[in-house]
Amino acid sequence: MDITWSNFKKQLPVVCQAIAEADFLAIDGEFSGISDGPSFTTLTNSLDTPEERYEKLKAHSMEFLLFQFGLCTFKYDDVKAKYIIKSFNFYIFPRPFNRNSPDKKFVCQSSSIDFLANQGFDFNKVFRDGIPYLNQEEERLLRDQQEEKRYHTNGASTTCYMYISPDASRAPVVPVIPDDQKDFIDKIVYQRKLIYQTMNWKFPRGTHVETVESPNNERRMIITKVDEDERKNKEIQKKVKEQEDLNNAVGFSRVIQAISSSSKLVVGHNMMLDIMHTIHQFYCQLPNDLEEFKSLTNCVFPRVLDTKLMASTQPFKAIISHTVLAELEKRLQMPPFNPPKVESAEGFPSYDTAVGQLHEAGYDAYITGLCFITMADYLGSFLSPPQTHVSVQSDVISPFFNKLFLMRITDIPYLNLDGPDLLPTRDNVLHVTFPKEWKASDLYQLFSAFGKIQVSWIDDTSAFVTLTQTDQVQIAVNISRFAESYCVQKYAEYVAKKDRQSLSKRKRTDDGWMDFERKRTKTQYKYVPM
Amino acid sequence: MDITWSNFKKQLPVVCQAIAEADFLAIDGEFSGISDGPSFTTLTNSLDTPEERYEKLKAHSMEFLLFQFGLCTFKYDDVKAKYIIKSFNFYIFPRPFNRNSPDKKFVCQSSSIDFLANQGFDFNKVFRDGIPYLNQEEERLLRDQQEEKRYHTNGASTTCYMYISPDASRAPVVPVIPDDQKDFIDKIVYQRKLIYQTMNWKFPRGTHVETVESPNNERRMIITKVDEDERKNKEIQKKVKEQEDLNNAVGFSRVIQAISSSSKLVVGHNMMLDIMHTIHQFYCQLPNDLEEFKSLTNCVFPRVLDTKLMASTQPFKAIISHTVLAELEKRLQMPPFNPPKVESAEGFPSYDTAVGQLHEAGYDAYITGLCFITMADYLGSFLSPPQTHVSVQSDVISPFFNKLFLMRITDIPYLNLDGPDLLPTRDNVLHVTFPKEWKASDLYQLFSAFGKIQVSWIDDTSAFVTLTQTDQVQIAVNISRFAESYCVQKYAEYVAKKDRQSLSKRKRTDDGWMDFERKRTKTQYKYVPM
Repeated sequence: MDITWSNFKKQLPVVCQAIAEADFLAIDGEFSGISDGPSFTTLTNSLDTPEERYEKLKAHSMEFLLFQFGLCTFKYDDVKAKYIIKSFNFYIFPRPFNRNSPDKKFVCQSSSIDFLANQGFDFNKVFRDGIPYLNQEEERLLRDQQEEKRYHTNGASTTCYMYISPDASRAPVVPVIPDDQKDFIDKIVYQRKLIYQTMNWKFPRGTHVETVESPNNERRMIITKVDEDERKNKEIQKKVKEQEDLNNAVGFSRVIQAISSSSKLVVGHNMMLDIMHTIHQFYCQLPNDLEEFKSLTNCVFPRVLDTKLMASTQPFKAIISHTVLAELEKRLQMPPFNPPKVESAEGFPSYDTAVGQLHEAGYDAYITGLCFITMADYLGSFLSPPQTHVSVQSDVISPFFNKLFLMRITDIPYLNLDGPDLLPTRDNVLHVTFPKEWKASDLYQLFSAFGKIQVSWIDDTSAFVTLTQTDQVQIAVNISRFAESYCVQKYAEYVAKKDRQSLSKRKRTDDGWMDFERKRTKTQYKYVPM
Repeated sequence: MDITWSNFKKQLPVVCQAIAEADFLAIDGEFSGISDGPSFTTLTNSLDTPEERYEKLKAHSMEFLLFQFGLCTFKYDDVKAKYIIKSFNFYIFPRPFNRNSPDKKFVCQSSSIDFLANQGFDFNKVFRDGIPYLNQEEERLLRDQQEEKRYHTNGASTTCYMYISPDASRAPVVPVIPDDQKDFIDKIVYQRKLIYQTMNWKFPRGTHVETVESPNNERRMIITKVDEDERKNKEIQKKVKEQEDLNNAVGFSRVIQAISSSSKLVVGHNMMLDIMHTIHQFYCQLPNDLEEFKSLTNCVFPRVLDTKLMASTQPFKAIISHTVLAELEKRLQMPPFNPPKVESAEGFPSYDTAVGQLHEAGYDAYITGLCFITMADYLGSFLSPPQTHVSVQSDVISPFFNKLFLMRITDIPYLNLDGPDLLPTRDNVLHVTFPKEWKASDLYQLFSAFGKIQVSWIDDTSAFVTLTQTDQVQIAVNISRFAESYCVQKYAEYVAKKDRQSLSKRKRTDDGWMDFERKRTKTQYKYVPM
């Protein structure tokens, strides 16, 4: 079911109910860019630590917009012995909901846009009718702003307040008034002040002031002469209206909040970026520290499962050669697998996997859920007695919980959200620095004496070189001592050095960050007397 | 006439002819963001120097995409005594034309996107069917790349070359090969080498090698056994094909090249950003230095005219109160103005100004041209004898040439492309620094003794304060010597100090830039032997 801003409010209860009754939820996001491809491939390294990988994804992917979010809810019907699914395809866009809303910027990557365009992606639906959203900080600020406005408009103060958008620099906007218009403006300002003063004096606490904004951002002020009861009534109405405005502005974030507070199992395919983007866009800025990110993810999504990681792990690894979503789905239709029966709930359009609508987020979420239950049921066949249906509570699934697949890292298959990550010794790995002019062939030549090697570039003057035999490592280091043009050290030494550097650097960065945060909180959404 | 990638090649000769026969050209661009609005208003300053304004626009606007370009050609028909116009509306998108093309990124600003969405802008047309483009550097690199490829594919060398996209970091991509696949890969690589060697030995200079790429980026290698004549023939065919591919990739830039080499007068409304974006996107990176930018603009567009500047200058200034395009067009339909007759050329749809399709680039270009000829003809009414039609060669227009309107700068109305800019003394302006906590009211209070003042914020600890009377400036400076919390200096002193700083800074920046350029030229589009 496509959900845009036009039907969002009407369908939100349907979405919430589907989440509430589900056994588990499958999700998928489509982005305006992914920084994958050649540039990202060279940026990431097959010997990245989980910390490094997280930092790189955070630095290079969060600028993109998650503009389509797929949610497919799965509920097992014991009587029918099949899953009943409800699939939603949300179009998302940070449409400014009024003149005060943050004016967000996002990056598009032409290859990603072109890819989606070729899949028939409807950009008009996103940009013309996307659902707006706020993160928690923005929601809080908007709430504060409403309260402050209420206090000043109908309270004792007659000061007029101007909103400064969060993008704005910290100085208040003082418009340029041409010389020939200055007298005119002075007069207007003076008259405005007179009107307010007279109003307060003539009708002490007996007027209701309201600013009405039309859809095309034109503003009118409505002043009504009221008695105390009427005034209170109007106040209540206004509060209700403001609450509604706030809800509208929070928009799609309410779906993520519903998923989060349901604590249901959330299944995704290669879902690290989906999770990072979802938190970044609808909750808060991502922390710098990986451990903090893990805690945060545990709060937002207490239980997740990555089908790419599951398919890459035994017993599946031995029988599944390709784990790209479309290929995985095809493979799981063949023996020894036996996809369980799935039926769309009444009123929900059914997907046809034979035709496929791959890269529509709702469909991808559906396929992901399908892959999950097929693999789960396969695990059930090893139980005694064998089970044809495995529930999400089953112990056979729990080993896969809270582990996110890590793309292209040789010896760390996943990020462990529930504790420390795997720490391979990498004692057959050398860290090599060399002149900028060196090419891959120079490295292969240099280490040719040590048999087959594997080169993982860090930048244009350094790389990791993995030797086949660990006992050659010391020899390579010893030989390098006679060299002047290049420098070789063991992986462990390199990491120790780097940790010491990053510790002192992090200290500085944290301070800088706190300083920035302090400024930001103080100055954003600031009210400035005119 | 809408021009997308689907009809671009067919319509390009029509566009070129329209440019060639025109008296003048009107242009307009639509962008994915403009960084205007509150944030940009606070960023820019009403006392910016032209250098500062250029730097700010360059730093904060070039990240956006010019995705619709309007061109309206105007040709006066003496017999009919009216202008014949041809209007084009180009949809532009940096669609990767093959696997080797640069993967460009651009920023979208949600307010701009929302604004265009509300105007009915068709984003699908841009993203699915936009015309690609290359700047001159990219065109040159693609040409070099084709030559290098030709040399290596059919020359003596059998080395295989891999393309690194310009986004890619500088290290070659070495893929991760799982241990269990290494033997397989080694064998394949070995066999490939054997095949090449055998081929060269068996058919010395008697084979033609061709790599064919399907629309979905699948590649096949076609090897044909040929004699010398056939081989030469195939070579020529291939060269023609490559030239065509290059032309396709250059795409929309060819329209800008045609406009440029025509040396025709180019008319725009508030056109500084249009010119900056056009040069940035279709020619080259913008220079850091304003004087270099002026020279560059003179090369690309030898003669430009800004209708906003024209309408803000006497004799128009006295009778035109609003210079926003839509309002200007309305005003110019009323006396003393007399809009000349305009007719769409055969085969071109006519615009109805009563209905209006404002903010479609082709329509805005048309309206801009209309405003220009209406104002030009009005100037003709002052000649003796009065002229009802003023040609673009007329002396009455030349004072408006090559001056770009500067938004919201109090005392410098335009950027002068033909020489040094106006240099107002600003001797009634003070530069004030103060604690972060200060608000506008503190400044107004501080300077209340000097009559009416105007505050132009620079950042949250400094501002310009303009006094009404110049003779008060020295008094204000003298008084401030006793103050500890704030500091006041004359504008001239502030500028002198800043110039000294920026001179030493520019020295450093230039070096940094050259260093970067050197690296970039060396490493982008680099061929790396595998």
